[in-house]
Amino acid sequence: MARSDPGDAPIQSGDAPIQGGGAPTPGREASSQGGNTPTQGGNAPTQGGNAPTQDRGVFSEGGEVYLDYQSARPVDPRVAEAMQPYFTERFGNPASLHAVGDRATEALEQSRAGVAAFLGATPGEIVFTSGATESNNLALIGYARKNKRSGNHVIITEVDHISVLNIGKYLEQEGFRVTRIPPDQYGRINPEKLRARITDDTILVSVGWASNEIGTVQPIPAIAEMLGGTGVALHVDAVAAEGQLPLDMGTVPVDLLTISSNDIYGPQGLGALYIRRGTRLAAVTMGGGQERGLRSGTENLAGIVGMAAAARIATEELPTEAPRLAALRDRLIQEVLCAIPDSHLNGHPVERLPNNAHFRFEGIEGESLLLSLRDEGIAVSTGSACSSKTLEPSHTLISCGLLHEEAHGSLEFTFGRFSPEADIDRVMEVLPGIVRRLRRLSPLYRKQ
Amino acid sequence: MARSDPGDAPIQSGDAPIQGGGAPTPGREASSQGGNTPTQGGNAPTQGGNAPTQDRGVFSEGGEVYLDYQSARPVDPRVAEAMQPYFTERFGNPASLHAVGDRATEALEQSRAGVAAFLGATPGEIVFTSGATESNNLALIGYARKNKRSGNHVIITEVDHISVLNIGKYLEQEGFRVTRIPPDQYGRINPEKLRARITDDTILVSVGWASNEIGTVQPIPAIAEMLGGTGVALHVDAVAAEGQLPLDMGTVPVDLLTISSNDIYGPQGLGALYIRRGTRLAAVTMGGGQERGLRSGTENLAGIVGMAAAARIATEELPTEAPRLAALRDRLIQEVLCAIPDSHLNGHPVERLPNNAHFRFEGIEGESLLLSLRDEGIAVSTGSACSSKTLEPSHTLISCGLLHEEAHGSLEFTFGRFSPEADIDRVMEVLPGIVRRLRRLSPLYRKQ
Repeated sequence: MARSDPGDAPIQSGDAPIQGGGAPTPGREASSQGGNTPTQGGNAPTQGGNAPTQDRGVFSEGGEVYLDYQSARPVDPRVAEAMQPYFTERFGNPASLHAVGDRATEALEQSRAGVAAFLGATPGEIVFTSGATESNNLALIGYARKNKRSGNHVIITEVDHISVLNIGKYLEQEGFRVTRIPPDQYGRINPEKLRARITDDTILVSVGWASNEIGTVQPIPAIAEMLGGTGVALHVDAVAAEGQLPLDMGTVPVDLLTISSNDIYGPQGLGALYIRRGTRLAAVTMGGGQERGLRSGTENLAGIVGMAAAARIATEELPTEAPRLAALRDRLIQEVLCAIPDSHLNGHPVERLPNNAHFRFEGIEGESLLLSLRDEGIAVSTGSACSSKTLEPSHTLISCGLLHEEAHGSLEFTFGRFSPEADIDRVMEVLPGIVRRLRRLSPLYRKQ
Repeated sequence: MARSDPGDAPIQSGDAPIQGGGAPTPGREASSQGGNTPTQGGNAPTQGGNAPTQDRGVFSEGGEVYLDYQSARPVDPRVAEAMQPYFTERFGNPASLHAVGDRATEALEQSRAGVAAFLGATPGEIVFTSGATESNNLALIGYARKNKRSGNHVIITEVDHISVLNIGKYLEQEGFRVTRIPPDQYGRINPEKLRARITDDTILVSVGWASNEIGTVQPIPAIAEMLGGTGVALHVDAVAAEGQLPLDMGTVPVDLLTISSNDIYGPQGLGALYIRRGTRLAAVTMGGGQERGLRSGTENLAGIVGMAAAARIATEELPTEAPRLAALRDRLIQEVLCAIPDSHLNGHPVERLPNNAHFRFEGIEGESLLLSLRDEGIAVSTGSACSSKTLEPSHTLISCGLLHEEAHGSLEFTFGRFSPEADIDRVMEVLPGIVRRLRRLSPLYRKQ
């Protein structure tokens, strides 16, 4: 079968498994992030209730093995419990002048401080939104509009989340010039290549901290350092990275950072935008002027309290959870590449999210694999859930140099807080047989 | 004290109380809405759990008498219960192709059908948003942008919600011409005056179904009928009216209708926009293309399930709840106007929301009244919560012809599902004494 070979061969089943000396442990990833260490929370025991990580395992209603955490995550039961009183007896509008409103304001501002601590930021730098998509819209459109007198050039990357790519198209309609930086074959952006595209007109660079698809982690500290002093602002969509890598705005000079609540096991429909003090934005949604005028609409108090609880738990558990997930990932990568011939790892072998294993299997369709795994009660993804109901191949994989049929032969496993080791056993019980069976039926696979 | 007299004198304490033959019962309001009757649900008993209306009373954490339902409402415990499983075991992303995603899709579409039924609409006409503010932004900005080749004139009213007023300013920045229709002294828009402002360039009219401040209900059926066949679209912000008046898109030809979840005792941070089949909008938020491309961002599944549960309960309880609230309102209006000299009712005496009583007390500040009531454990509002932390007088009251000091002397009581009759007793125990005391201290009040 036809196959692109983009320079360095990506890791594949014939190569030595990456489990050895170069294992992508979170320690390495942390140091590759410029020496960040988690600055909040440490190893303090989790407050309130039993940690559900004591009894990992069946979590979804249907009893599936759920390995699609990038698409949606369950809310941590501790978070759901923290939210509960704010639906009923602790409801309120922070704008109200009475005692109910004052208690709502207090809960809102405590939660803002909690989310700020998660990012090593100050409370005044956090604006709550309805989710990462809205945060990205506010960051890019809001910054571009407010600063267009300084220039009309915005740089994004080819491997950004679909929302950033579509915002890029929209900014072009508003008259901005948008450059899209291609990645290397591992999906990584080279800071020097990015620097080369900056002009006098450049006002904003947006790079995802990590890919929600192939798991590749970008050199954000190096990019932030490179932009320092240029006057070009840096926006980072950190949704795929949050809760898995330390995000410390005190040490990494990012100007705007998007996070989502659900990606740290908080409720859906909520996110935040970190706005470094002094960074000026225009509002994108017009209304009552909540969130310092930047995000109108009565605050989703229960959700915000939940997001803050989720941020606290994520901070506390990161030091133990990231290595646990990385061990699951490394075991799955090693076993798949060993047990299944003509299988390849997509994305970066080392600079990789702890919870992501993304494979390409020659000669078969990822969607057929997904449906066969579904029959076995295993839930996985062929790529970004945000566009997974289309027939288009992943834009990320195409940007990494894969051919359309190679991109279509890919499958993504993402783990999370409630994934037990036994999930890997179950995948390895059935996946090799499924691949063999599909290849026997495939006119594209002729190697055996 | 100075006092404007805008033509017909508004009802005040010297006049006959409105409780008599002209009592604003929901029946009258329904018929004034053009003969709408609730078409869904009827009197079917509420499913699931005991209705909390069996034990109304203390609801807020602090035990306050809460009479500020327009600012924020508690989530109905039945709604909170319905949402609960969707945080944890029934989580999922409707875009996923596996069984977890399929169950999420099923819950999403069932909820969409439920919200559609609440409005007498079809499921394909409902788009979920992060709340009424976003719905208003999508409706007005999205419609204006998409249809600007047909004209550049948009009509709103002076008594719209602050979000519509600020969207109007924004549309002017985008090059649209925006006309603001003034109300009469009761806050009502005259359809003939509105018709007179329509030009060949007019593409959109936006009118709130009722005022969240003064409670005046607009003649939406007459406005919709007047616009029929003109090609001018009608957007209605129905947030203040939902759950209190029947909203039937089958009989009232509105093109775009904004509703919020919390205003029917669903979770905050969620809303919907009804988009009549054939009405074309541009997306305002760019992203993964959820909600038929009109509202990107992963769906807030638990919230959406909650909003649908809230809509079902609201439909079922409207026939009994609206008259119950109207009786509380009428009792409070009658007793305040009788017991407190130089007090006046703001807003319309008859075309009025069942849960709203809005007063003006000569010679004192609404904020002083609010704080004195706060000391007595009673939570009320001086106006729209969306701007209640500003010192500006209510734009609605000013548009109704009140002077600044009259607008500042106003106080709003809004009831809801958990308001017992005893709340009125408590208000009447303390309010006359508070008004007397404040007037003794007031240099503005010289009548006694």
